[in-house]
Amino acid sequence: MATLVVPDHPSPVQDAESLRKACQGWGTDEKAIIQILGHRNAVQRNQIRKAYEELYQENLIKRLESELSGDFEKAVYRWLLDPAERDAVLAHVAVKDSMLDYQTIIEIACVRSSEELLAVKRAYHLRYKHSLDEDVASHTTGDFRKLLVALVSTFRYDGDEINVSLAESEAKLLHEVIKGKAFSHEEIIRILSTRSKSQLNATFNCYRDAHGTSITKSLLDDPADEFLAALRMAIRCITFPQKYFEKVLRNAVNKGRTDEDALTRVIVTRAEKDLNDIKELYHKRNNASLEHAINKHTSGDYKAFLLALLGDKEL
Amino acid sequence: MATLVVPDHPSPVQDAESLRKACQGWGTDEKAIIQILGHRNAVQRNQIRKAYEELYQENLIKRLESELSGDFEKAVYRWLLDPAERDAVLAHVAVKDSMLDYQTIIEIACVRSSEELLAVKRAYHLRYKHSLDEDVASHTTGDFRKLLVALVSTFRYDGDEINVSLAESEAKLLHEVIKGKAFSHEEIIRILSTRSKSQLNATFNCYRDAHGTSITKSLLDDPADEFLAALRMAIRCITFPQKYFEKVLRNAVNKGRTDEDALTRVIVTRAEKDLNDIKELYHKRNNASLEHAINKHTSGDYKAFLLALLGDKEL
Repeated sequence: MATLVVPDHPSPVQDAESLRKACQGWGTDEKAIIQILGHRNAVQRNQIRKAYEELYQENLIKRLESELSGDFEKAVYRWLLDPAERDAVLAHVAVKDSMLDYQTIIEIACVRSSEELLAVKRAYHLRYKHSLDEDVASHTTGDFRKLLVALVSTFRYDGDEINVSLAESEAKLLHEVIKGKAFSHEEIIRILSTRSKSQLNATFNCYRDAHGTSITKSLLDDPADEFLAALRMAIRCITFPQKYFEKVLRNAVNKGRTDEDALTRVIVTRAEKDLNDIKELYHKRNNASLEHAINKHTSGDYKAFLLALLGDKEL
Repeated sequence: MATLVVPDHPSPVQDAESLRKACQGWGTDEKAIIQILGHRNAVQRNQIRKAYEELYQENLIKRLESELSGDFEKAVYRWLLDPAERDAVLAHVAVKDSMLDYQTIIEIACVRSSEELLAVKRAYHLRYKHSLDEDVASHTTGDFRKLLVALVSTFRYDGDEINVSLAESEAKLLHEVIKGKAFSHEEIIRILSTRSKSQLNATFNCYRDAHGTSITKSLLDDPADEFLAALRMAIRCITFPQKYFEKVLRNAVNKGRTDEDALTRVIVTRAEKDLNDIKELYHKRNNASLEHAINKHTSGDYKAFLLALLGDKEL
């Protein structure tokens, strides 16, 4: 379930006019911006962008970029983009990062459905005149390249059909390879990157049934090994994305310095999808609400905007 | 240019009725079938299939399969399918082949545009409840797997933009790797499978300019090496598909036993695309027309059907 709360039938023209007003004159009226944009869904935001462009011959996103700043600006910018466009931007930033932010790439590749991932790749073509596959491939090497390129390139079958004997034989194969500590073995990458999510769930269940431990636990051999961390991340994104996102949020607020990029990414990309489920998991796991954590670890307009996306009822 | 010749505004209902008549009673009227289906484009064939289904509550393809036989049946069956559906069938047959027919897979992956290849993958999902990537991956091993999965999975950028300095640096990189005989080097596979076709053309031109020989010639180290043959094939499919198809046709008729599968595949998949250009290249290269070769090496209804697709004017 989503957390986003939107009013019935808001007028895109009125919204565009209010946003224009909020940007004009001395200072910017951030509150008005949050009140509008923090309570509009993707279709409505798109209509507002179009209405604004028509009314003022000006790009709303560019205008807001020049008016806002810091984490608040970043969050509003990401929020205003279409989901596929936003993922293309997130992936591009992740690829260009000098350290290569593999977490974001795995998240986009493994959480999105096949059709959603395809839309991201189309948006990436349009925006960067390159393919996502090619940028990931040319910014990585070795085992990481093999894994990431395979995860990004695949066009998985999205159906529910499961082949039980295949699940059993591939669970066995995975166990043998992992037992032999051949973590970058091409069979792990092949299975993880090409099988459908339903099939992979069946395979991981067989793994647990046969060996009494989950495959992610088996891949905990060396906690400092980043490739193993990437494998576990991909598996968690495929099998239980809400739980994965709960952990990202937990790490974003609980590790001394708040990780605003991760916080923004999860809240902005999930607010219209399953952020309510993630919030519930967060509450259960941390004995405190996500809102409480955000209140504690962020501030100002940025905080107000995140809380709006989290379902703050003030319309 | 295409070779297919179609009449103005044929009636799908009339066509369906004529096909029904051709299938009824004692014996089948193959001539009538060729006269109709050999002169209808993809849209028209689709309309005929629909009209036939509505009129007779019977699947036209299944009916024709039961009426026809041998190479003629195979050719009509492939011809009746939508292009993407047909490629999905061709790829599936190629994957399931005990020897794995890598030529067909490379052809589909490298000749089709990104959007066409995507349509093939969608058709494959729908038909086989599996992804093409996963079937290719699970039926191959080693270097062949790396190459084929990468070529099948990619979603290349389709634009014309070229980065000249990238072309130069990757031409140099390719030359170094090839000089060191590291043919299955991951950089060859990365470049070949992820860069746009325009970019690859630029890279291969740089290669030729800098080293006085084409990259395909450099990959001729051991003529018996199948992996090298696959690399050359992929490069030829990307850079000059018509020339590649001319060679496939030449081999199909000039090697003692006629290769009807290859003949059918090229003629059926190219008749509505560029078969005229392929025919011209064939004529130039072999001092004889493609029609002449087909007349010589095939017979009966199969021959008549291929000649119809090749532009036989008899409507």
